[in-house]
Amino acid sequence: MTPQLRQHIATLVPGIAIAEEALAPFFQTRSVKKGALLLSEGAPCNEIYFVNSGCLYLFYEHEGQGEVIHFALEHWWLTDYKTFADNKPAVFAIAAMEDSEITYLSRSAYDALLLQFPLMAVYFNKIHERAYGAALFKQKTFGTMTREDFYRYFSNTYPHLIRRIPAPLLASYIGISTEALKELQAKTLS
Amino acid sequence: MTPQLRQHIATLVPGIAIAEEALAPFFQTRSVKKGALLLSEGAPCNEIYFVNSGCLYLFYEHEGQGEVIHFALEHWWLTDYKTFADNKPAVFAIAAMEDSEITYLSRSAYDALLLQFPLMAVYFNKIHERAYGAALFKQKTFGTMTREDFYRYFSNTYPHLIRRIPAPLLASYIGISTEALKELQAKTLS
Repeated sequence: MTPQLRQHIATLVPGIAIAEEALAPFFQTRSVKKGALLLSEGAPCNEIYFVNSGCLYLFYEHEGQGEVIHFALEHWWLTDYKTFADNKPAVFAIAAMEDSEITYLSRSAYDALLLQFPLMAVYFNKIHERAYGAALFKQKTFGTMTREDFYRYFSNTYPHLIRRIPAPLLASYIGISTEALKELQAKTLS
Repeated sequence: MTPQLRQHIATLVPGIAIAEEALAPFFQTRSVKKGALLLSEGAPCNEIYFVNSGCLYLFYEHEGQGEVIHFALEHWWLTDYKTFADNKPAVFAIAAMEDSEITYLSRSAYDALLLQFPLMAVYFNKIHERAYGAALFKQKTFGTMTREDFYRYFSNTYPHLIRRIPAPLLASYIGISTEALKELQAKTLS
């Protein structure tokens, strides 16, 4: 476990009283380089990642291009939830946008952790209900906003993130070409 | 509690040993008529619903039309997760597609239930990680399939659901006009 994860658990489940020595054996931590692939489409998805520092992103390949659908900054969890739950070949890939330090759980460690320390399920349930809410809300913002308005909304909501994302990844997330994004950014700055 | 909910909990958390008398006071059950509005956009979202029978759907209004983004059949939970978590005005509305029987928890009952019986958080966490995975995967299917292919995929994946959904709601969910849906259905049948 890392100080970042300890802090995050304490924030979401105030007063949680599980000795860190009891939790520590479930978690592992490693560093990954910018551009490293943590999960490939079609591979077994057996891990769930917590970002201590850096940023991961979730994407799929379509017509030779990587299409980004989610970024996970510091204190966010990420996996291919569709297949982490079902133990099927991954439908998404995960890569590091920056040099990152991640703490992770294997599927078996995750299942054992939740059953042995169900208060940790209170923690994960909070994370997942919020993430689910955000994914549903993104469908509404995508359905009701022009790409230009969505760019502005995303920039205003995540100002720290927007400065860190390379243009091709941000353009893919917004659903426009890199050239169109650069025009939008120039327009917004002027 | 209802037999349907008891059964669903036992399926997702096998061996869970919480006396039903301890859980029952948290839950309430009521019947709602087809077309009834359980939540309006902008209203406080204070309840989470389990469908014992019937079907609920999640939607928003855009340019005078209801845009459907999710259906909840028997044994599914539904709320406006974006605001149920944050206690802000709802960004979605919820209505009954059919006469339905629902079991529900208030936000305060839900929070109390999870802290007093954290094994129930194991149950809800499973539901929410799967629902989140499905919402992310829908972004991929929407991004990679024609509306026609998405209709076929959805029909094949949820054959029982597709027969129950009125054409205007299904057309909205797929992102086409009701007329285009009817043409598609005729083409598929021929």
